[in-house]
Amino acid sequence: MTTAALIIIGNEILSGRTQDKNLAWLGKELNELGVRLMEVRVIPDIESTIIDTVNALRSAHSYVFTTGGIGPTHDDITCASVAKAFGRKVVRHPEAERRLLAHYTPEQINEARMKMADVPEGAELIDNPVSTAPGFRVENVFVMAGVPSIMQAMFGNVKHLLTGGAKMLSCTLSAFVTEGTIAAGLTAVQNAHPATEIGSYPFIRDGRLGTSLVVRCTDVDELERTVLEVSQLLRTFTQEVETLAG
Amino acid sequence: MTTAALIIIGNEILSGRTQDKNLAWLGKELNELGVRLMEVRVIPDIESTIIDTVNALRSAHSYVFTTGGIGPTHDDITCASVAKAFGRKVVRHPEAERRLLAHYTPEQINEARMKMADVPEGAELIDNPVSTAPGFRVENVFVMAGVPSIMQAMFGNVKHLLTGGAKMLSCTLSAFVTEGTIAAGLTAVQNAHPATEIGSYPFIRDGRLGTSLVVRCTDVDELERTVLEVSQLLRTFTQEVETLAG
Repeated sequence: MTTAALIIIGNEILSGRTQDKNLAWLGKELNELGVRLMEVRVIPDIESTIIDTVNALRSAHSYVFTTGGIGPTHDDITCASVAKAFGRKVVRHPEAERRLLAHYTPEQINEARMKMADVPEGAELIDNPVSTAPGFRVENVFVMAGVPSIMQAMFGNVKHLLTGGAKMLSCTLSAFVTEGTIAAGLTAVQNAHPATEIGSYPFIRDGRLGTSLVVRCTDVDELERTVLEVSQLLRTFTQEVETLAG
Repeated sequence: MTTAALIIIGNEILSGRTQDKNLAWLGKELNELGVRLMEVRVIPDIESTIIDTVNALRSAHSYVFTTGGIGPTHDDITCASVAKAFGRKVVRHPEAERRLLAHYTPEQINEARMKMADVPEGAELIDNPVSTAPGFRVENVFVMAGVPSIMQAMFGNVKHLLTGGAKMLSCTLSAFVTEGTIAAGLTAVQNAHPATEIGSYPFIRDGRLGTSLVVRCTDVDELERTVLEVSQLLRTFTQEVETLAG
């Protein structure tokens, strides 16, 4: 199985000031490529934490993505930290430098902005069509911006580099039936279909308790067989079952 | 410093199907109590992963919170996993059992629902005023539901148990000035106020690039002095500075 981890770097996410939007987006995109997002860590802008987290996850997963901390200000320490994680020097990338010099007016050019051309030695650039300052890749670690629109554009420029496995197919069935009502039946369906993964998630909508059942499998026939059984189970309690493929 | 970690347990968050809302809410609540959320890990419903994560974080932080995986279905393995992390047996809690028996009609009572009365031996219950089935606390680990309204109610019932330090005060200044313009000046302000933490976060609003500067400090006077300097820095470039205390 091709797996990935995401490291969200930023005090603003941990303080609750900013609601992260990159996790859910990247989880879906990776799934489309047959890469399974297995772990996400949200960590503060502390060099030793970034180094330890990058090193723990890059050896455990096929790919590691980071978001945040690659701007021009004093709290943007991702590049220096990732370089240390790999034991590499920070160098100014000539092509990144060329792009930034072309992008800014002479009055705008300053050392802080040019710092965004720095990468760990040997890193490859990740193009940024939104605001020029690039991300970079070192081995299996992809360092991207934190602003969602920029992160998404950067990911679009690297996804051809990812080698995924079989895509995880899924189907969600939702009904106003509580989890406890169907738990035993659901265990039986799960046990009969070990290659399928059935997740059960309660929800409250308009003050009513319900359950969403997410059926996931890489094989479409096995997925359909399992969905049919889950659907039959739900329909012993209600005829109103909402089914959402995807 | 009193620190905390949050473990979000659930494949549905990693797949991108569900947008997590607990991180930001809990980050703010903990801050109000003078507890600093230092790390969040989002992990799948895999027993060994839950055990390893709980054990890594409970020794590193004052408090650990978990969300998700405490319902009645086959994929709800948080209780059993946390019990193993502590080397404790899973036992049925008499008071939790009493509450569930009182909450459900005789027809609704089944083994799956009663499983929600199970806790690691010696755990204390966390009341759930929304849907009865309780969370629990083992030492410094607080196990809560994943549904935001239930998690929030549970947290309200345990926050009196938390001993925080000085509350982190903050003020956010936003303006349509790009990070690169103010980076050098901002570094000077940061260096002059080492007890203050200045975070710089770019944003795109109506197609225009801007920056939010979050100034944080436990001392109100030092906070105000730093905010004044950041404000003066921004006002050398624009008179439109939005200030948000909080």
